[in-house]
Amino acid sequence: MKFIISTLVCLLVYVAPSLAKERPCLVLTADGVKEITTGPKLPLFDKAVNDAKNIVDAAIATGIDVPVPKDMAGGYTHEQHKRNYKHMSLAGALYQITKEDKYADYVKQTLLKYEEIFPTLGKHPAEKSYSRGKLFWQCLNDANWLVYTAQAYDAVYDYLSKTERKKIEDNLLRPYADYISVENPKFFNRVHNHSTWGNAAVGMIGLAINDDELVERALYGLPKDDKENLAYDNDGGFIYENGQAKAGFFAQIDNAFSPDGYYEEGPYYQRYAMTPFMLFASALQNNRPKLNIFAHRDSVLLKAVYALIYQTNEAGEFFPINDAQKGMSIRSLSVISAVDIAYSLNEDKGLLGLAVIQDQVLLDQYGYRVALGISKGDISNTSKKSVQLGDGKDGKQGALTVLRTENGDNDLTLVFKSTGQGLGHGHFDKLGILLYSGSDEVLQDYGSARWVNMDQKQGGRYLPENKSWAKQTLAHNTIIVDGKSHFEGKYKNATGKHSDPLVFDVSDPSMQLAIAADTNAYPGVNLHRTVALINEPAFGSPFVLDLFGAISEEEHTYQMPYQFADRYMTSDPKMQAQPMPIVMGKKHGYQHVYQEAEAEISQSGYSFNWYNHKKFYTITGVSQPGDKLVLARMGANDINFNIRSDAFYLHETKKQKDALFAAIIEPHGTYSYVSEIPNTPTSQIKSIEVLVKTTKYTVVQIVNITETKMLVFISNEKNHETQNHSTKLAGQTYTWTGTHHKLIIN
Amino acid sequence: MKFIISTLVCLLVYVAPSLAKERPCLVLTADGVKEITTGPKLPLFDKAVNDAKNIVDAAIATGIDVPVPKDMAGGYTHEQHKRNYKHMSLAGALYQITKEDKYADYVKQTLLKYEEIFPTLGKHPAEKSYSRGKLFWQCLNDANWLVYTAQAYDAVYDYLSKTERKKIEDNLLRPYADYISVENPKFFNRVHNHSTWGNAAVGMIGLAINDDELVERALYGLPKDDKENLAYDNDGGFIYENGQAKAGFFAQIDNAFSPDGYYEEGPYYQRYAMTPFMLFASALQNNRPKLNIFAHRDSVLLKAVYALIYQTNEAGEFFPINDAQKGMSIRSLSVISAVDIAYSLNEDKGLLGLAVIQDQVLLDQYGYRVALGISKGDISNTSKKSVQLGDGKDGKQGALTVLRTENGDNDLTLVFKSTGQGLGHGHFDKLGILLYSGSDEVLQDYGSARWVNMDQKQGGRYLPENKSWAKQTLAHNTIIVDGKSHFEGKYKNATGKHSDPLVFDVSDPSMQLAIAADTNAYPGVNLHRTVALINEPAFGSPFVLDLFGAISEEEHTYQMPYQFADRYMTSDPKMQAQPMPIVMGKKHGYQHVYQEAEAEISQSGYSFNWYNHKKFYTITGVSQPGDKLVLARMGANDINFNIRSDAFYLHETKKQKDALFAAIIEPHGTYSYVSEIPNTPTSQIKSIEVLVKTTKYTVVQIVNITETKMLVFISNEKNHETQNHSTKLAGQTYTWTGTHHKLIIN
Repeated sequence: MKFIISTLVCLLVYVAPSLAKERPCLVLTADGVKEITTGPKLPLFDKAVNDAKNIVDAAIATGIDVPVPKDMAGGYTHEQHKRNYKHMSLAGALYQITKEDKYADYVKQTLLKYEEIFPTLGKHPAEKSYSRGKLFWQCLNDANWLVYTAQAYDAVYDYLSKTERKKIEDNLLRPYADYISVENPKFFNRVHNHSTWGNAAVGMIGLAINDDELVERALYGLPKDDKENLAYDNDGGFIYENGQAKAGFFAQIDNAFSPDGYYEEGPYYQRYAMTPFMLFASALQNNRPKLNIFAHRDSVLLKAVYALIYQTNEAGEFFPINDAQKGMSIRSLSVISAVDIAYSLNEDKGLLGLAVIQDQVLLDQYGYRVALGISKGDISNTSKKSVQLGDGKDGKQGALTVLRTENGDNDLTLVFKSTGQGLGHGHFDKLGILLYSGSDEVLQDYGSARWVNMDQKQGGRYLPENKSWAKQTLAHNTIIVDGKSHFEGKYKNATGKHSDPLVFDVSDPSMQLAIAADTNAYPGVNLHRTVALINEPAFGSPFVLDLFGAISEEEHTYQMPYQFADRYMTSDPKMQAQPMPIVMGKKHGYQHVYQEAEAEISQSGYSFNWYNHKKFYTITGVSQPGDKLVLARMGANDINFNIRSDAFYLHETKKQKDALFAAIIEPHGTYSYVSEIPNTPTSQIKSIEVLVKTTKYTVVQIVNITETKMLVFISNEKNHETQNHSTKLAGQTYTWTGTHHKLIIN
Repeated sequence: MKFIISTLVCLLVYVAPSLAKERPCLVLTADGVKEITTGPKLPLFDKAVNDAKNIVDAAIATGIDVPVPKDMAGGYTHEQHKRNYKHMSLAGALYQITKEDKYADYVKQTLLKYEEIFPTLGKHPAEKSYSRGKLFWQCLNDANWLVYTAQAYDAVYDYLSKTERKKIEDNLLRPYADYISVENPKFFNRVHNHSTWGNAAVGMIGLAINDDELVERALYGLPKDDKENLAYDNDGGFIYENGQAKAGFFAQIDNAFSPDGYYEEGPYYQRYAMTPFMLFASALQNNRPKLNIFAHRDSVLLKAVYALIYQTNEAGEFFPINDAQKGMSIRSLSVISAVDIAYSLNEDKGLLGLAVIQDQVLLDQYGYRVALGISKGDISNTSKKSVQLGDGKDGKQGALTVLRTENGDNDLTLVFKSTGQGLGHGHFDKLGILLYSGSDEVLQDYGSARWVNMDQKQGGRYLPENKSWAKQTLAHNTIIVDGKSHFEGKYKNATGKHSDPLVFDVSDPSMQLAIAADTNAYPGVNLHRTVALINEPAFGSPFVLDLFGAISEEEHTYQMPYQFADRYMTSDPKMQAQPMPIVMGKKHGYQHVYQEAEAEISQSGYSFNWYNHKKFYTITGVSQPGDKLVLARMGANDINFNIRSDAFYLHETKKQKDALFAAIIEPHGTYSYVSEIPNTPTSQIKSIEVLVKTTKYTVVQIVNITETKMLVFISNEKNHETQNHSTKLAGQTYTWTGTHHKLIIN
């Protein structure tokens, strides 16, 4: 029965001449192999072939080692089993492309060794996971192994004898697929990125060994067992989040992304999660075209690829919101897979532009087509446009907003976070911002406190300081009320809540605007932040107008941290270092920070000038006499030296019901260590003043050093671009249409 | 009389058809113009032409401004007069190359404006210099102006009428040349890099206006006035150093460089000093070929160009020994001049390799020839070899040693400083080292505490912390005795003294060795340091063997700082941060340092592992039980936040007459933020042990993690490569020839 159904499918796809599937058929296909071997030679694809040959030839020379599982991640047996599946999948592709038997033989011998050892294995000896694997300490890694091994097996299917196939399928592949699914339902039936790997693994094994039941299980999950409802995973998360009705690959697609393709944990984790989605989806496309998987949910998988790309700086590095190690970028193999597969779907030349930067393609027809596109030279830059990506399954659980100018080296990229919490990896930074000048961080997000895979730092796991520092509000660029983190830094307070994006208007390239509000982070305090990227020739380099308002019926201390990292140059008022640094507090991250200097502000404005990576920056802010500036450096109570020694400053206002932190954030100058000439080392802004601040409107006056004035009128509320507004100012009535209006007075 | 002599010279040079000189004749020559205009078009030279056009065309469009002098460096009038001479010299060259009158006219109009203002000028109003200029606050800048204006005048000489020439020469150029020489003998008659500019200025004006007396004055100085002997300049240095018998350009060449072309202040200042040497020398070569200036003193100017190049890391940045701002590199205009002019002298293809990196050439025949060489593609990499450069006029006042391996990305460059003091810009770091892996700093020199030309930081001048921190021994990688800097940090104790290079042997690429001693830094303590670059396949990546011995008849506390910068990963013994940092002392730089952690060493060895810029490093050291490790960070008592927050560690041994800090310094691993895979994150060395330590010999045993042993035999004293040695070890006698011997035991 199984056999007939799968054969029918193959007939529908290929009109195969016999009942046997044409192999390979998973990601790399028989048609794909023809395309590659009969098409022109392409330098980028040849590089992929040669790189793979170097790796696999070396592996063949070293000899096959399939050790008894013993180690955790980083240890020998763990790394060796990872190497084995990578080598097998590359060898499989090489066999198809070069037709050299040695590659097929390598896969066969390796599989037979696994086939021999597998039945002898109990659970992995390490007991750190709620879902212990066989070869690895957690089923996630076993699923990785199966996803790649399925492709390797498929590639050498015709090379194997019937007997060999039966042995490998009966003793290794099918029972292994069963193990990570029916024997580990908590792992397999979750809606979670780990489980997506599980679904993909079982589905791809199913396709590889013609087992439709496995494919069905992968697509729709196991029958749900209600008693699992309240079980926890070993990271402290629920196995099933509230209300999960379905499981399997479709449920993952339906739940993982927002309709805009945003992934709630953020791009660092999305990058990792994309691989099983794209690989299994392309295998389904090649074997179950009727599912039309890439069109599912209004083509959300393709949207997710673009959402991922939009969430990168000029260097292609992901915005390090939530738990993220900085430096992860579009050059990662997961994004190469995503870009290559997506290109076959839409032939977007912008994707070719990305692939040129990646300088690497997949060893299959998807990679080949990208290399072909590049060789034709018909490439455009990926348009990294200003976007707002809705969060949550319905796209209405807040949003991540990205505003970008296009000024070459002076490009500004502003990331504005009014999303949901981001599950267990979320940080407590509602309405936080990150700012880049080109690929340089202007206002940084600390990222995670973790040195991934570095054994010296607690085996590369999340460090205690991830919770005590990196997740805390103080490590971000957003308001702090009464010295406490948003939601008091507690996941249970934060989960299910999101900020409210009110305005996103990028119709005017000279002033792009986003407004969002939050009423959850601090019960009883309404937060409202307006950020605008202003690119006005009369004012030189583009800059950010930042208006952060807080309204409460009680008096509070409000602090606004700016994570400039280094190096304080000068300010007004001047900062003079204290004789000794002081630890700023006991919790909410303050215990990890030294106060190095403070200065009382006696005027209605202040400025703060710094220098970092050959660029000069200034923040010019509105203040009240009695406010203070605090210069701080991270690293206190950091027993194991896990925290970077970066600097930031706080603008603090005390005993206020309402506060408005209004500031210009301005990258204005550069320096060359070769010419030793500073170019515009000081601010081009003389002053900023808030002239009107009502619930409905904000009017700001900005004056530059040549006395040119800019009046900015902003409608604070959700409104349409066609709406008319008017406000009075010094006896004069100003009217405008839309979210904002900007007036230059020379 | 004057006229006849100069005409005769021109006849000797060009066999000119008339008595008039063929113009231009200074750096760019008439023959050079022919070479450029009749030769092939060359992209790199065309770039130079177009860059100059962009600059000068913009200047013409802006209009000429010759303001009354008023400001210090960085201020408008200062910067405008600098711009004017740059624009004039470019415009002059453009006139010669393009024949467009607008460029000559721009020079003419500018000169006439200066001719008008000059007679009205008294001394510059700022009174900060012992030699106040006219257009600038110090004669140095006036000399710069004259060097470039001489070339501009020469380039438009034939375009000017006789009357115009007479006005400009009589009212501006000749009196200006007299001003910076006869009216400022303290400036003009010194042997000093500033005065070299003065000599070049007077000499080039002399050549430009056919005034032989000026040329003679430039070459041989003014008659010396003995009463000036003890005068000070405004940096606190003597006007005449002891025993100066001569002045003028020849005296500069004879005194500025060692026979190897080393400049005693170090490469940062040498780079600046090279320009007047090379420009005036080439003008002399073109007009007084009989002087054979480039051959003078065994071609020391050409040697100086190479010495400069040898003192750079893989990125072409100068070693920041002594007062130096990091990042200054071979891309600076001074080095472009030096490389282009040197190439015409020797046609070294290695210089073309440098020019490719510089990506810019001079707007004259020297630049053209380099562009031509590059276009022919006959380029080689500049062989940055291991060198020892003698210091001092006689080359015997110590030496700077550079050891390099050639391993591509893993290249190690070790700089070993056993030089003289380096005048007022010298740091107190006898026998100090700097280490690079590729272009990454492994053990850094702090450089100077100065932000050159950044107004925010005390106008870009040297900061107080340059003296209190950057110059102190603690900011370097060399031994500290009893918590005091070398020479107690006093210039008067240090000047005239130098360390003694004993051995420099790079004959064996698998082990390059240098040994030096010092008896001056601490009276009563003999210092002896051996550094070896070992590149032994059985031991993986190349590493440094560092043996620093101190011998005294009294007991001392010895500390060895290692400037690793960041980020401590792990160590044995482990470092645990103190609850609060402690300021380490009150002077000698300790007042600027926080102790963050300390750990007592209970064994005969320790290890210290760190991570910086994607690379892993370990120092494996020999210790005695009771020694301690101190982890420290810069930035204490730094009122104006002038000091970087870099980390270092100290290995301390107390109450010892003798000490030997023996260590392996080992860059061994890398990390990728994209793959997140660390490659060799931990040391490949298991242990180091000193088996023999006598006055004559040191024997060290190094064992790696696969238990391969290396025995290193070193003869500690000055000796020849043919000398025979023998030493006993565990009853066995080992014999070898030369400075060292290395034995691998598997």
